[in-house]
Amino acid sequence: MRVVLDGMGGDNAPQEIVKGAVQAAELIDDEIIIVGPVDQISEELENCGYEGDQISIRQAGDVITMEDSPVKAIRNKTDSTLVVGLNMLKDGQGDMFVSAGNTGALIVGSRLILGRIRGIDRPALASIYPDMTGGEPCLLVDAGASSESKANNLLEYGLMGSIYVEKVWGRPNPAVGLVNLGVEEGKGTSVTKDAYKKLKASHLNFVGNVEAREVPKHACDVIVCDGFVGNVILKLTEGVALSIFKLIKGTLMQSAKTKIAGALIKPQLTAMKDEFDYEEYGGAPVLGVNGPVMKMHGSSSATAVKNAIIKGLPYAREGVVGIIRNEMLKIQEYIEDEED
Amino acid sequence: MRVVLDGMGGDNAPQEIVKGAVQAAELIDDEIIIVGPVDQISEELENCGYEGDQISIRQAGDVITMEDSPVKAIRNKTDSTLVVGLNMLKDGQGDMFVSAGNTGALIVGSRLILGRIRGIDRPALASIYPDMTGGEPCLLVDAGASSESKANNLLEYGLMGSIYVEKVWGRPNPAVGLVNLGVEEGKGTSVTKDAYKKLKASHLNFVGNVEAREVPKHACDVIVCDGFVGNVILKLTEGVALSIFKLIKGTLMQSAKTKIAGALIKPQLTAMKDEFDYEEYGGAPVLGVNGPVMKMHGSSSATAVKNAIIKGLPYAREGVVGIIRNEMLKIQEYIEDEED
Repeated sequence: MRVVLDGMGGDNAPQEIVKGAVQAAELIDDEIIIVGPVDQISEELENCGYEGDQISIRQAGDVITMEDSPVKAIRNKTDSTLVVGLNMLKDGQGDMFVSAGNTGALIVGSRLILGRIRGIDRPALASIYPDMTGGEPCLLVDAGASSESKANNLLEYGLMGSIYVEKVWGRPNPAVGLVNLGVEEGKGTSVTKDAYKKLKASHLNFVGNVEAREVPKHACDVIVCDGFVGNVILKLTEGVALSIFKLIKGTLMQSAKTKIAGALIKPQLTAMKDEFDYEEYGGAPVLGVNGPVMKMHGSSSATAVKNAIIKGLPYAREGVVGIIRNEMLKIQEYIEDEED
Repeated sequence: MRVVLDGMGGDNAPQEIVKGAVQAAELIDDEIIIVGPVDQISEELENCGYEGDQISIRQAGDVITMEDSPVKAIRNKTDSTLVVGLNMLKDGQGDMFVSAGNTGALIVGSRLILGRIRGIDRPALASIYPDMTGGEPCLLVDAGASSESKANNLLEYGLMGSIYVEKVWGRPNPAVGLVNLGVEEGKGTSVTKDAYKKLKASHLNFVGNVEAREVPKHACDVIVCDGFVGNVILKLTEGVALSIFKLIKGTLMQSAKTKIAGALIKPQLTAMKDEFDYEEYGGAPVLGVNGPVMKMHGSSSATAVKNAIIKGLPYAREGVVGIIRNEMLKIQEYIEDEED
């Protein structure tokens, strides 16, 4: 596989991006093509002491920043690392594109440059959600690519998420659940009620509605929701978890006694925080476009970059895009139902 | 004030309800009328050793259970504690109704029996959300009375929440924020974009969009969102917090060393858990109906009942319903804008 890597995306580019590429190259045989200004990227590769030929550079002189408006930036910044990288994927000069850049631009660019998979109305961003009971994470779709979704979109999210979890994570027959107000059929908005019916009628392993309370406890393998709710789930989880960790830290600093307690459980607390560490999990796939695209956190370190590349590789290697394309035919009948 | 209390609502009725009423009566001069089967309620009052005349009983022989369908139950179970209690409020035989019963039935009953305040399209359930940085809680509206909301509904939630926080919690000029995908104006769904404009144009102290990440950190005094998102926020917060506390507990049981640490910080951990304890906060008001109605948690203990009564009293005493009625006239112009 040839991994195309956005050399200038995110807060720590190009340094951490290049470091991560070098670390990944030590662990895989696949080729890595870093897109960015040749002089800057070369310098960083030298700083890492890299002398191999597994990593190459593809020139791109411009960068889409976090402040850029996605649609305008994709149209105007044609020499940006993001646009150049996506075009390489489109033109068959790479098998996967990985970026820590502007999320909106990456999603819009994927849609405009690669195009949607036939039958997919809305591509989605799928985010990895940790299991707070200590088990395996689940995949949350949509994590914010769209702010509003129709029932068919939710069905598509379930289908794409299910394929991704099965092929990329190697988890057979993934359980798919729908975020809703209650577990009973008939709960929720007109959209979630309709989505429930469509998911139930599909060939997916649909386990029904999931209440938000169960999301942190690995309620299922694929959590389906609209992008607004997905955004709330991800950000609120982060907000609550960080607030509680801060409270614990404050608690442990209260007195000599609590400081001793803190010292005694420090390794355990560190291990617990690591469970929530997105850096270990790899990137968030953009699903529903004609090519494997991975989004990394904007503040990704070299470790996060390395993991996004290594853990994301099966997205390209297993031909997930092709499988989604074929599977879309199977659910076409349910989608047509809605249009009747 | 005369507090009408649903003697049979919730998992711990009538025992904890009656106990809570007796505890409240010791602290306030207001009258408490418990609605329920006279024999059962009398027995519980006797068990509490209550002999005063501040608490009285109003006969109602039927109960709306958690399994009952709200609309059907309100129509058919005319002798239920919930229907009898709401009718007492409507007929001026009480000044406030407090219940730990079926939430859906309480909201539907409030709407059908008391009626909506003129101009209010959708009554809301407002829930108290703790400040995880240790400060004062905020009010989340809507916590799930409706699953879908229009922009005008969100404006109404902001208005009603603002009045409630000012009058019942005594916090002047409360800051009102809108849950959205990002802080910038123009973010979100068509509904949140429109609601932003209406809230900004209103006389409320609107502080703009609030990302879910900031909700646990007291982003504002009144958090406005639709009932689906409100439900997700409340349940997910509970799920994440309980999962982390469970992880901590597990961590502290790992070895002799961590057990010592656990013993050293036990008082602090208990204090921290108390911060999240809904029992201390009082009930969740139903807003937008013609009478002060308070919902208590279904598993309320006597302490929760006592606090719901005492902390809810200003809802009736400060004439919040009348103020909402008057203030609705002020925002009528913005609402009419939408209908143009």
